[in-house]
Amino acid sequence: MQLHELQGIVERTFGHRDRARGIPANVAWLTEEVGELAQALRKGDRDQQLQEFGDVLAWTASLANLAGVSLEEALARYRQGCPRCGASPCHCP
Amino acid sequence: MQLHELQGIVERTFGHRDRARGIPANVAWLTEEVGELAQALRKGDRDQQLQEFGDVLAWTASLANLAGVSLEEALARYRQGCPRCGASPCHCP
Repeated sequence: MQLHELQGIVERTFGHRDRARGIPANVAWLTEEVGELAQALRKGDRDQQLQEFGDVLAWTASLANLAGVSLEEALARYRQGCPRCGASPCHCP
Repeated sequence: MQLHELQGIVERTFGHRDRARGIPANVAWLTEEVGELAQALRKGDRDQQLQEFGDVLAWTASLANLAGVSLEEALARYRQGCPRCGASPCHCP
């Protein structure tokens, strides 16, 4: 899946609710999902981990939509490797 | 960018360090980046928001690599809309 596809799916599916809720409440939801992912990684099974990774990505895409940010553009600085040292593998100290 | 491309870039660039660090430390880094994203959304400019969205996605991909999870597969349940009600737009109460 392309990142812009993800943003489009999330916009069509949840955009109306995300906009009504606003950015701070969406930040709270993303944080909750990150907590659930942390728990799934500590003691969950593969299905739970899959679900939580999907939820974290979906809420990140929701926030990007609300902020008017393209996730594709956000990742541009990773395309050639490490955004700091520019190398891949990263050579940062 | 496709999600599997993101996982490949992150694996080549940071995989050696991510594996040495382990999942719990990577969870801590992701959490830190989510905090930085929250701050950028509250008072940052567009460039800061772009940077933090990219970092959250990259650390999520790092964790998925460590857990052996495909982000593409993780998002399969969102392809048709809401994973709970199945509709797009979501009709959940």
